[in-house]
Amino acid sequence: MSQDTLTQTLFAEICKIPLIDAHTHVNPHQAASKTLDDVLGYHYFTELAHSAGMDKAALAPNVDPRERCRAVFAHLDRFDNTVQYGWFLEIARTFFGYEGTRFTALDFDGLWDAAAKVLGQPDWEAQVLKRTNLERVFLTNDFDDPLKGINLQRYVPCLRVDDLVFRLHEPGVRQRLAKATGIDAVDLQSAKLALGSVFGNFARAGARACAVSLPPYFEPDPDIYNLTDDNDVEIAEAFKHLTKGDEGGGDWEEVRSLKIFWTVAEFCREFKLPFDLMLGVNRNVYENGVHQGRDLFDQRTSLVQYANLFNRFPDVTFCVSVLSSAQNQELASFSWIFPNVVTSGHWWYANIPAYIAHDARARLQAVPKTKQIGYYSDMYKLEFGLPKFNMYRRILANVLADDFVRTKVYTEAQAVELAKLILRDNVRTIFKV
Amino acid sequence: MSQDTLTQTLFAEICKIPLIDAHTHVNPHQAASKTLDDVLGYHYFTELAHSAGMDKAALAPNVDPRERCRAVFAHLDRFDNTVQYGWFLEIARTFFGYEGTRFTALDFDGLWDAAAKVLGQPDWEAQVLKRTNLERVFLTNDFDDPLKGINLQRYVPCLRVDDLVFRLHEPGVRQRLAKATGIDAVDLQSAKLALGSVFGNFARAGARACAVSLPPYFEPDPDIYNLTDDNDVEIAEAFKHLTKGDEGGGDWEEVRSLKIFWTVAEFCREFKLPFDLMLGVNRNVYENGVHQGRDLFDQRTSLVQYANLFNRFPDVTFCVSVLSSAQNQELASFSWIFPNVVTSGHWWYANIPAYIAHDARARLQAVPKTKQIGYYSDMYKLEFGLPKFNMYRRILANVLADDFVRTKVYTEAQAVELAKLILRDNVRTIFKV
Amino acid sequence: MSQDTLTQTLFAEICKIPLIDAHTHVNPHQAASKTLDDVLGYHYFTELAHSAGMDKAALAPNVDPRERCRAVFAHLDRFDNTVQYGWFLEIARTFFGYEGTRFTALDFDGLWDAAAKVLGQPDWEAQVLKRTNLERVFLTNDFDDPLKGINLQRYVPCLRVDDLVFRLHEPGVRQRLAKATGIDAVDLQSAKLALGSVFGNFARAGARACAVSLPPYFEPDPDIYNLTDDNDVEIAEAFKHLTKGDEGGGDWEEVRSLKIFWTVAEFCREFKLPFDLMLGVNRNVYENGVHQGRDLFDQRTSLVQYANLFNRFPDVTFCVSVLSSAQNQELASFSWIFPNVVTSGHWWYANIPAYIAHDARARLQAVPKTKQIGYYSDMYKLEFGLPKFNMYRRILANVLADDFVRTKVYTEAQAVELAKLILRDNVRTIFKV
Repeated sequence: MSQDTLTQTLFAEICKIPLIDAHTHVNPHQAASKTLDDVLGYHYFTELAHSAGMDKAALAPNVDPRERCRAVFAHLDRFDNTVQYGWFLEIARTFFGYEGTRFTALDFDGLWDAAAKVLGQPDWEAQVLKRTNLERVFLTNDFDDPLKGINLQRYVPCLRVDDLVFRLHEPGVRQRLAKATGIDAVDLQSAKLALGSVFGNFARAGARACAVSLPPYFEPDPDIYNLTDDNDVEIAEAFKHLTKGDEGGGDWEEVRSLKIFWTVAEFCREFKLPFDLMLGVNRNVYENGVHQGRDLFDQRTSLVQYANLFNRFPDVTFCVSVLSSAQNQELASFSWIFPNVVTSGHWWYANIPAYIAHDARARLQAVPKTKQIGYYSDMYKLEFGLPKFNMYRRILANVLADDFVRTKVYTEAQAVELAKLILRDNVRTIFKV
Repeated sequence: MSQDTLTQTLFAEICKIPLIDAHTHVNPHQAASKTLDDVLGYHYFTELAHSAGMDKAALAPNVDPRERCRAVFAHLDRFDNTVQYGWFLEIARTFFGYEGTRFTALDFDGLWDAAAKVLGQPDWEAQVLKRTNLERVFLTNDFDDPLKGINLQRYVPCLRVDDLVFRLHEPGVRQRLAKATGIDAVDLQSAKLALGSVFGNFARAGARACAVSLPPYFEPDPDIYNLTDDNDVEIAEAFKHLTKGDEGGGDWEEVRSLKIFWTVAEFCREFKLPFDLMLGVNRNVYENGVHQGRDLFDQRTSLVQYANLFNRFPDVTFCVSVLSSAQNQELASFSWIFPNVVTSGHWWYANIPAYIAHDARARLQAVPKTKQIGYYSDMYKLEFGLPKFNMYRRILANVLADDFVRTKVYTEAQAVELAKLILRDNVRTIFKV
Repeated sequence: MSQDTLTQTLFAEICKIPLIDAHTHVNPHQAASKTLDDVLGYHYFTELAHSAGMDKAALAPNVDPRERCRAVFAHLDRFDNTVQYGWFLEIARTFFGYEGTRFTALDFDGLWDAAAKVLGQPDWEAQVLKRTNLERVFLTNDFDDPLKGINLQRYVPCLRVDDLVFRLHEPGVRQRLAKATGIDAVDLQSAKLALGSVFGNFARAGARACAVSLPPYFEPDPDIYNLTDDNDVEIAEAFKHLTKGDEGGGDWEEVRSLKIFWTVAEFCREFKLPFDLMLGVNRNVYENGVHQGRDLFDQRTSLVQYANLFNRFPDVTFCVSVLSSAQNQELASFSWIFPNVVTSGHWWYANIPAYIAHDARARLQAVPKTKQIGYYSDMYKLEFGLPKFNMYRRILANVLADDFVRTKVYTEAQAVELAKLILRDNVRTIFKV
């Protein structure tokens, strides 16, 4: 970030905007970290440490948390150039009183103890939210989450449907669905009933979004498979594999995933829930990676694969995240054309300043400002809201300074209004929170 | 744009270069706007307004133009962040005497009336060309355009062949061709004769280019289809569908489009016309979009699809436009290698400052300067030449300042010479105007 | 490059780092140029001159070198905007005493004579290495290179396997292999023995890497072809074409290339050699191009094609170069996840400041610093090390200034340490030199 006065002023003003974080993985019953191991256990650190040479054995569940954490910490100096290291440094400095600028092995024990003290405070969760200026936090809930005891003033349930779309043939998943809804999904009709029941459960619990992550080759278009009617024999055949407990392979699997996905979109329409599409992730590409550190993307993908979906569901708002910066141009263009396509955050492998800056700039220049969700944290523990949003806020301040204020497109006040829109107001409007 | 003195000086000098606009859609018999509705009727505004929530009904043909325009105007504040809003603001300030920096609903009637007064001046067309410093403007003419009464000092005819390449099977298109040439295209031989006649007509009328827009999956390579001879039975079969009036579907359609396209290239060679290839547009992706607001691109495309074409027609200059910024690297590389491939403008979804800057920078660093057409407006009404070229000129000034003058690659005067080459001289040389 | 003091200071410090150039094509027996024709004969100049209009006849072997060089020189003014022109200008100014900033035809004879004088000095090779601060230079050796008489203090042999992987069916290649190893490759078993012999030869001669360039569609994954066993009949059939002396076409060729490639990877593991993968080049796209000026890339490619390879060879370090800037995001992401994937340089069509800056920035923000080879020259003559590395060093200084020092991620000294790591220490560690 250029450190000029205008950018700093804008950054300071943007930091005053209370945030609504539209996508996270926090556990509402234990949203904050309890130890430094919870912080450095974030997959960004374990995968970078492993990629830089750390043996996976150091992360085994039976390892003492303090020693597991020490192992990751000991490898930090191999990736102290990365933005992820920067997140941890900002957490340590802001929350744990660390005063250095580079960690050394000597820092570990002091930091562990300082973190334990801070994280052990009974009101830590409230403190970290306040210091991050984070007002509401969206969750990612399994379809059979009982959604009990959640502080709904603070957390917003969100139905995650990956298991239903891609893994309903697994006996465990079908049993979980039966348990949650009382309906055994043995064909398309019963699957629809069960999904309707799930949506009803989530609606009653105050859910505000439905979300799914999709592989790059996924193309949810019934026309490709000539599926004109729910009674097509191909569909019946595809669902027969549910009770067989096997995937069915190839086409059957694709047809079944497509029909369930399509049904989910129908329920989003019926229940008036925006549908978060997180596009492009290939699961388990690095087979021996650490937990959550095995997935990668394939740039050979296009939003054209979703054109039919966008056309058929004009009443559903699709909040779209992409993994490749090249595809961001497609996203900006589709959102500029389709009323129901919204740009959403900067996700995972695109969540790097070099790509955020380029992608955010294009969106701010080409997409109606009312159709942009600037950023979400994707965090698992609340402490990461601060450094991740700060990373975005610094870039946003820079883009606003260069592209809007200095070019006299906006005044400073108008630029801050734009920031407020994409960081807060649009989330409220789109998700009705 | 950084607002430093060097950039401002370069921008001022660049603005003195008389422009030749190598690709537009203006109607030479009514090139300027008559009302503010002509201005805000540009698809960029109607599609952004619709994308941001405006009902298409507001644009219906039977709506009073002033009220139709008011509806679009009323939605401008939802996309006042976009560069397109900036174009309109610059038009209003430069041409219509608007003195504000943000429109409000209160501005509409005054602006409508001011525009009517200005646009109603008998010499407005000449005025706007002069104030834009626009010397010659290329047209986009249908193959059966009579090309009569065009002011050839000002406008340059250009043969657009999309209808011929992709829609010759439609009875209306074949009839138009028969009417324009006296030849009924019922097979490849008669189609060639008819195309030859069209090229003759255009050559006599002073046409200087042939142009076509092509979908991302188009691959004009006879080798793929094993079409070694014009008498191949596949070709005969493909053309039989012309008289049947149906597309023929799948391969037949592809073979026919390919052969017509190839024939067009042959006539470009014979008539010594550069061939503008505008690559990557999928038509009608958003089915319910506004007029001209339905097309989008698919990033999964490559210039390799055109390698055989470039190889077989070394004497034809191909002026290539691409839609995706990622493909711009391919374009820069192909133009650096193939003598007959020229980089052409920044088109449509790539016509956004964030992408123009990145793409222009790469071309200026890698492609011989004699092989670059810096920019064309693609406008439908003359008023858009000024803000669109200004957008490019600002970016160009910035790139020249940063990459050429400050790094001592060029003096300021040499930098301005480069600008003159890519904004004017290359167009004159390549199109012989 | 912004010319601020911080960037200049960093650049000066970076220039003090002795370089190890991990990939070049220099001939160790004649590494420096003898005449200006050797310099301007570099394919970057001949292809740009040809692309800008120079007749290929001017480059014919029977043309007098001085006149051939004069022809290329005469076309330089058509691409004096390019970074390649900048390389030559820097060579002329630094090494040949040229004092101008733009060449004119009048400069040629003086420059030719000055170059002859400088290049004719007996210790010129040592001088140019010293002035470039270049300590060690990797070679690209044919599999049957006798590797005799190489100054191993200065040059590092590297086994190039393109001929083996893709052209073993050509009788000449198979004969060369037989001559070099005493083994006639007539099936997979004998091919393995021969390859093992080649690796042994290179290991004894001090080779430190194996390298191959691969087309965009190559997918070295035995699972795709169901090749579970070396004794598969498909494999036997694929290799039968070796003795027939034909490619075998289609699948046979792919299976054979795949198996040889896979065998190469196995020997890299056995001989503990890193495997340089240079991904994405289509050979002979421009059929009538100048020597080495015929190849181009296809952006439709993904590192996912190599996932199985990376998974199966965890002990082999893959130093990966890509041709498209869009794919750089894949590279950064794969290197962040896979311990055995290293980012390597900025190659060919991506070796342009606009793309280097964007790509380097992303890598420095996302990939462990220990897994990055910042740059290699890819040069054919030693004189190009200076301008090519200087181009990179300027960009690196700029990125370090903006993204690291000004943002207080690193001190200046730490930033220079990072530069040293990616320009020198990582090459030493990864290749064990």
